[in-house]
Amino acid sequence: MSQKKQLKLGAFLPGSGHHVAAWRHPNAQADGGLNFQHYKQLAQTAERGKFDMLFLADGLAVWDRGQGREAFSRSGQFSVHFEPLTLLSALSVVTEHIGLVATASTTYDEPFHLARKFASLDYLSGGRAGWNVVTSSAEAAAKNFSREEHLEHSLRYERAREFLEVASKLWDSWQDDAFLHDKESGIYFDPDKLHVPNHKGKYFSVRGPLNVARPIQGYPVIVQAGSSEAGQDLAAQTAEAIFTAQQTLAEAQAFYSSVKGRLSKYGRSPEHLKIMPGVFPVIGRTEEEAKQKYQELQDFIHPSVGLGLLSGLVGGHDLSKYPLDGPLPDLPDTNAGKSRLQLITDLARRENLTIRQLYLWIAGARGHRTILGTPEQIADQLEDWFINDGADGFNIMPPWLPGGLDEFVDLVIPELQRRGLFRTEYEGRTLRENLGLPRPVNQFTKVASSELAGALR
Amino acid sequence: MSQKKQLKLGAFLPGSGHHVAAWRHPNAQADGGLNFQHYKQLAQTAERGKFDMLFLADGLAVWDRGQGREAFSRSGQFSVHFEPLTLLSALSVVTEHIGLVATASTTYDEPFHLARKFASLDYLSGGRAGWNVVTSSAEAAAKNFSREEHLEHSLRYERAREFLEVASKLWDSWQDDAFLHDKESGIYFDPDKLHVPNHKGKYFSVRGPLNVARPIQGYPVIVQAGSSEAGQDLAAQTAEAIFTAQQTLAEAQAFYSSVKGRLSKYGRSPEHLKIMPGVFPVIGRTEEEAKQKYQELQDFIHPSVGLGLLSGLVGGHDLSKYPLDGPLPDLPDTNAGKSRLQLITDLARRENLTIRQLYLWIAGARGHRTILGTPEQIADQLEDWFINDGADGFNIMPPWLPGGLDEFVDLVIPELQRRGLFRTEYEGRTLRENLGLPRPVNQFTKVASSELAGALR
Repeated sequence: MSQKKQLKLGAFLPGSGHHVAAWRHPNAQADGGLNFQHYKQLAQTAERGKFDMLFLADGLAVWDRGQGREAFSRSGQFSVHFEPLTLLSALSVVTEHIGLVATASTTYDEPFHLARKFASLDYLSGGRAGWNVVTSSAEAAAKNFSREEHLEHSLRYERAREFLEVASKLWDSWQDDAFLHDKESGIYFDPDKLHVPNHKGKYFSVRGPLNVARPIQGYPVIVQAGSSEAGQDLAAQTAEAIFTAQQTLAEAQAFYSSVKGRLSKYGRSPEHLKIMPGVFPVIGRTEEEAKQKYQELQDFIHPSVGLGLLSGLVGGHDLSKYPLDGPLPDLPDTNAGKSRLQLITDLARRENLTIRQLYLWIAGARGHRTILGTPEQIADQLEDWFINDGADGFNIMPPWLPGGLDEFVDLVIPELQRRGLFRTEYEGRTLRENLGLPRPVNQFTKVASSELAGALR
Repeated sequence: MSQKKQLKLGAFLPGSGHHVAAWRHPNAQADGGLNFQHYKQLAQTAERGKFDMLFLADGLAVWDRGQGREAFSRSGQFSVHFEPLTLLSALSVVTEHIGLVATASTTYDEPFHLARKFASLDYLSGGRAGWNVVTSSAEAAAKNFSREEHLEHSLRYERAREFLEVASKLWDSWQDDAFLHDKESGIYFDPDKLHVPNHKGKYFSVRGPLNVARPIQGYPVIVQAGSSEAGQDLAAQTAEAIFTAQQTLAEAQAFYSSVKGRLSKYGRSPEHLKIMPGVFPVIGRTEEEAKQKYQELQDFIHPSVGLGLLSGLVGGHDLSKYPLDGPLPDLPDTNAGKSRLQLITDLARRENLTIRQLYLWIAGARGHRTILGTPEQIADQLEDWFINDGADGFNIMPPWLPGGLDEFVDLVIPELQRRGLFRTEYEGRTLRENLGLPRPVNQFTKVASSELAGALR
């Protein structure tokens, strides 16, 4: 593996922050999900901090996990928010360097639509678009798209793989230099440099070509978040960054080597897939202050919210019928995300937590790694995972916004920079360049290129 | 009908302009379709001119009408361009007043996706979103969405009607004042003000609610462009502005009264649907100069392009087998747009045009009304249609961009303002307010409101 020099950072920014009660923080933007001025400020702060990318999650249904009317009305901060592609398009205008990564689902959309929108965002942003490819784990989404049932887990991944294949063909419809714009001769494009994909597969028949030129980055940067076997495999084949939830260095290392080990099967180099666990940092001048700040947020959690949150994360099982101060029962898999149920069950067993303790533990980072401490302590922990092959970087999940991001940028980033672990200036113009990823070769010209190489040899 | 005071104006802005050879104009932005700085300039120019809205057309396939390789490569200015919703989201940041109207098709998308994206744009823009609802007339789109055949014309309209019904229910999921953001009590929204649509119909089953709050405008402004019987009927039921192609005042008046006459059937007032024919203005200091400028553009048209364009507009019939200098033959309907074939056939018969003359006639405005003249002459013609019930306003289609828009804003708008026919300042904050359209009442509160009204009487 080539030497890793500097870590990569994403800023994962839900409207009011990641903590389930974030919006109640006195300085949190309670209506942040639909407040553009707020997001403009966040994006510019993240860019000031030289973050590689701004990351937006997404879901295709209101965050109603059957947690009951009261819990629902109290945890509504996740219920309404901007649609990511429209928001990032707007943010592209008020930023210059930071990557813009939107989550979009392959289960409820069409390759032509998504390939096109991400290509359009790539042009709007001058080559800063990224796509977090998800297959949707919520059953509720199916009911918003005229389907009775959510597609079964393995079929979702099969569909996702073909979806990405079609998208890549669409992005390759036009060669990079297809457009001549030659006013004199009147030739707008060179027809030899147009390739009609004509894809026919199990899930999709898409003729193409795409009605956007080849993206500035070739393809937008492909991000994934699935940690199941199927998810890891799809990532090894197609992803360039993985956002993942890991609680301990040992788990992180196991995941890291499992995913990196799959890359050679697809002829890919390990450094072309960046593994970025989520981190939920609570920053204080002292460790004690950090703990106090965390406790302040925890105190905002109403019990109905905590229980509702936990039920949602374990696949919709109703936990209210079990004693709050008893252990988490064994729960069967559902057709929702598998890896998260396993992660949470492992956590409860390892730390010997009651249901109440578990929801309080999870409420903040919702399954991600929580770090409480001084900027130095946080930098220590990030460095530890980074140099010990647990991570190539991190997706930073501020507890509340905007303050949690301000603190990270003002206090932790400078510490990482002092240690030489993080950039002080952007290296390139595009997200791909900043992440150190190769620009993909057009698949329709590969044959011709290798023939040419042969002829030149 | 209430007195009409001032006309409404849309700026219809394809990348390089409307003329089929616009991109070859020496000062045209040949790569305009994917050039954000260009669009930023256009949007700000249109806003300086106090246009009601910026209008973007759209198609779900590359503009390849089977016109042959040469014509295709010469008319590529329409082949690649930004996706409208992403572009308008970006433009929302660099404008303050102008409405932002994106075309999107109900035939190849899902109500949840589109309702959501337009709601998101409405929040990004502070209440300036509009949706030009189309059913897609291109067979080519079907092949990009895994369908063998394009949905038949009447079924497309049936689907569109239900699509809009679902979208309106989704927009009404949350009452305007549903979100309390009450940090003290911890209640984020009032659950009594959430209404789950639970729509079940012929084409769609959509549970909802939408994961965006009720749009600032209630609903985005609904625009339509269909002129067929089915199109007029759908417009009378649901549209608030119609973009239409009319060549003569008599035709425009017939269309105007036909559409306005349908409104009472749906309990709507005639002034709540603005009829806006397209106008392709070529502006000169003298009439002679305008004619010269038009001829310059016409001279850029390669015969293969003209013929290809015409073939596309008459539903894909191959016209190359007929003599170029002979008459247009009688052509049968296809499953593409009906109204345009009729329009073009009527034009050819009325003006006794050969195929070549016809494509030259049509190349500029592609079926829309061409006006050549001085700013005063153009204002005369707009005023004539406006005061004689042929139009409530116009969708201005600059021959080439950016210059064609600059000239209209600098020369024609001041003339319209001098005559009291056009605003000198925006009247309201939202597109709906500037167009003089009512803000829709939430359908889920109508009963309650009328009960309340009854109780107060």
